[in-house]
Amino acid sequence: MKRVAGHRDHEGRLAQLGEAIRCHRKTVGLSQEALADAAEIDRSHMGKIERGERNVSVLNLIKIAAALDKRPSELLGSAGL
Amino acid sequence: MKRVAGHRDHEGRLAQLGEAIRCHRKTVGLSQEALADAAEIDRSHMGKIERGERNVSVLNLIKIAAALDKRPSELLGSAGL
Repeated sequence: MKRVAGHRDHEGRLAQLGEAIRCHRKTVGLSQEALADAAEIDRSHMGKIERGERNVSVLNLIKIAAALDKRPSELLGSAGL
Repeated sequence: MKRVAGHRDHEGRLAQLGEAIRCHRKTVGLSQEALADAAEIDRSHMGKIERGERNVSVLNLIKIAAALDKRPSELLGSAGL
């Protein structure tokens, strides 16, 4: 079990989401920094999101999905969520 | 434009999500308090989520979806996200 910013993430679901984001990012050929900039998210925060170390907010999920040309629901679905 | 806890929610997407949660909750016949309890979310926080006044986290979205017997991606999709 992993603790993420005060939350318990029993099943590593944030890591699944982070991995899905990383996978889509690589597919479109963006660096982590380029994705962070495109989504207007702090670069170090984006690194933590990809490593499943941050509990992503819906508004940030929407921005990340838009930068990857995906719908937020697709991004979650591709993470098995 | 609405400001939500320091974020700008230009297109009222949190309100869309809140409305979708309310709609699914009513469909399954749960009160807002019963949904909050089932999802282990503070009741007043749940009220704010349904009114689009809070930037929901992915872990809370997962808990709300589970309490509504939906997948998180379905819940977002049904909100048009």
